[in-house]
Amino acid sequence: METFTNSIEPIANAELERHIRARLDSLTKPRGSLGRLETLALQLGLIQKTGMPGVGRKAVAIFCADHGIVEEGVSPYPSEVTRQMVENFRAGGAAITVLCRHYSIEPVIVDMGVGAPTRNFLREPAMSRQQAEQAIEEGMRHADDGDLLGAGEMGIGNSTSAAALFSAFSGLDPAETAGRGTGLDDAGVARKIDAIRRALDLHQPDPCDPVGVLAAVGGFEIAAIAGLILGTARKRRMVVLDGFISCAAALVARAIAPASLDYAVFSHRSAERGHRRMLEFLNAQPLFDLDMRLGEGTGAALGMNLVEAAVRLYREMATFESAGVSDRAL
Amino acid sequence: METFTNSIEPIANAELERHIRARLDSLTKPRGSLGRLETLALQLGLIQKTGMPGVGRKAVAIFCADHGIVEEGVSPYPSEVTRQMVENFRAGGAAITVLCRHYSIEPVIVDMGVGAPTRNFLREPAMSRQQAEQAIEEGMRHADDGDLLGAGEMGIGNSTSAAALFSAFSGLDPAETAGRGTGLDDAGVARKIDAIRRALDLHQPDPCDPVGVLAAVGGFEIAAIAGLILGTARKRRMVVLDGFISCAAALVARAIAPASLDYAVFSHRSAERGHRRMLEFLNAQPLFDLDMRLGEGTGAALGMNLVEAAVRLYREMATFESAGVSDRAL
Repeated sequence: METFTNSIEPIANAELERHIRARLDSLTKPRGSLGRLETLALQLGLIQKTGMPGVGRKAVAIFCADHGIVEEGVSPYPSEVTRQMVENFRAGGAAITVLCRHYSIEPVIVDMGVGAPTRNFLREPAMSRQQAEQAIEEGMRHADDGDLLGAGEMGIGNSTSAAALFSAFSGLDPAETAGRGTGLDDAGVARKIDAIRRALDLHQPDPCDPVGVLAAVGGFEIAAIAGLILGTARKRRMVVLDGFISCAAALVARAIAPASLDYAVFSHRSAERGHRRMLEFLNAQPLFDLDMRLGEGTGAALGMNLVEAAVRLYREMATFESAGVSDRAL
Repeated sequence: METFTNSIEPIANAELERHIRARLDSLTKPRGSLGRLETLALQLGLIQKTGMPGVGRKAVAIFCADHGIVEEGVSPYPSEVTRQMVENFRAGGAAITVLCRHYSIEPVIVDMGVGAPTRNFLREPAMSRQQAEQAIEEGMRHADDGDLLGAGEMGIGNSTSAAALFSAFSGLDPAETAGRGTGLDDAGVARKIDAIRRALDLHQPDPCDPVGVLAAVGGFEIAAIAGLILGTARKRRMVVLDGFISCAAALVARAIAPASLDYAVFSHRSAERGHRRMLEFLNAQPLFDLDMRLGEGTGAALGMNLVEAAVRLYREMATFESAGVSDRAL
C-alpha cells in the first residue's frame, strides 16, 4: 500500500487559491459567471501549483479486460465483444475514438486481460492480491501518457464488478447498486443482483482493505483505473473520470489514498442505475448529465474538453483593466 | 407577421426518423447509450431533411444593444460597458470570442443600437412597432451567417427586459422572473422587480401580440434573436440558444410561429433566477447546467460543440456489421 500512497498530497493552498480567484475576478465578466468552468481552472491551478495552469498533451487511457462473471449471464453481449471492440478502437470506429479525433485527444488502448478473464467471482476471488496490485501499478504507469488524463475502459461484464465494488464499499444492497449495464432486461438485472449478493456473502470483502475488495470482485481494468487515479495524483496531474465503471475505481482509489480524488474531475452522471448514488457516496458533483451510459471514456472526453475550454478562458480572456472595460459601479 | 411565419414547418417526419434511429441503433454501442447526443443527431437530420446531417459553417451572432431602462438603476454596470464589450469582442478578449476560437466558430458582432438605446419602458414603450419588426428582420438575415447558428447577445440592462417579457407572456409576477443579472444586490433586485411591475401595469402587453410585447418592454438584441430563431427555422437550419436572454427571445419566436422552436437547441440552464421556470414554461430540456450566467452566447458555443460531437459520432462510428462486432445476443 505504501507504494501506492506515498507523496499524494491534498491540493489545498489558500494563498494560491486567492491568487487564482483574483485573476478570475479580474476577467471581463461578472464575478463567478462562468460557474463550473471557473472551478475547473482553479482546480487545475492548484493541482499544477501555478497561477497559470495549462492543458498540454491530452490522453484517454482505455483499459480493456474480460470478466469471468460473464458466464453467469450478467451481460446481454458475449465476452468476445471486448476483443472486437479493441479492434474497433484500433480502427477508429468506436465512439471514444471518434471523440478523441474531435477533441485532439490521444487514445491509449491498454490490454489488461482481453481474452484472459478474471475468475468467476461467484466461485472464487476474481484475482489474486498480487494480480490486483500489478494491475494498479500498470494503471499508475499510464499517468505518463499525457499531461491531462482521461479514464476509459471496455470490458463485457464490468458493470457487475463495479456494482459489486460499490456494494462492498457502501454496504448498499446490490438491488441499489446494479443496473441494466449495456441493456439487460428485468430478468437479467435480477440475475445480476443475485450473483452480486451471493458473491458478497461468499467473500465478505472488507472495505478497509481496498486491494482485497478488488481481488474479490474487481476487474483488471477497474484496478488499472484506480491506479491511473493514484498515479496522476502522485504526478500532480488532473484525471477526468467517466461514468459508473471509473467511479467504482474512484471508490478504490479513495480507500487507498483519500487525497487522490482532489486530482479527479467527475465528468458526468450516467444513466446507469446506481451511478447517482455512487456519486453521492463519493460526494462528487459531475459536470453534466447527457443521459449517456456508454463508457469507453466517452463522458471523460467531453469533460476534458470542458477543462480545456476553462483553461483557455482563464488564460486568454482580457481583464477589465487591459480591455478598458468599466468594472461594476456598485 | 405573415413575413415572419411563412414557410416555417414542424420538423416531424416519421419515415426519416425511423431511418435515422435505425442507423443510430446500428452503430457499435448499446442502443440509446449516447443519450442526448443521439437526440441531437436526430434533430439535425430532421431539420436538414437528410439521413446524413452535417454541421458545416458555425457562427454565433452576437447582437449588441443598449437599454433605456438602465437609468432606473437595474444593473450594477453602466451602459457604456456595452460599447466597451463590443470592443472587447473585436479584440478577441471576451469569453465568447475565446470559446469561438476554441471551437472554430465565427463570431459575428451585430450592432443593434449600441449607444442608441431603447426608450425607458417605465415611461413609454421601449420601441415602436416598426422598430421591433425591423430588429426581427435584421436578426432573420443573420440566419445566413452559417449552417449551424448560435444566439449571442450583449446589452447592459437586458435581463430586466427579458424578465419583463417572461412576465408578459407567462403572467408570472416579476418577483418570479427577475434575478440578479450581472450581480445586483438585494436592493437592486427589488428595484428591478418594482420597475417591471410598474411597466407591465403601464403597457398591459397582450401575449397574443408578440410584436406588441417586444415593442413595449423588449430590446433590439432580443428582437434580433427572435428573428434569428425564425430565420434559421425558415432556412431549415439549427439554432443553439444560450441562457435567460435568448430564451426570452424564444418566447417571442414561439408566440409568432410555434414550430420555429423545433429548430432550436436549448444549450444550458443558467444560474439566473428565472431561467429554470422559463425553460419549464417553454417545455425545454437544456443540455447542461454548469452554473453559468454570463450570456454573450457562451453556453450556446458549448452547446454547438456538443452538436458537432453528436454529428461526428453519427457519421463516423462504425456499425456492428462494418466492424465485425457481435450485436447483443438477448
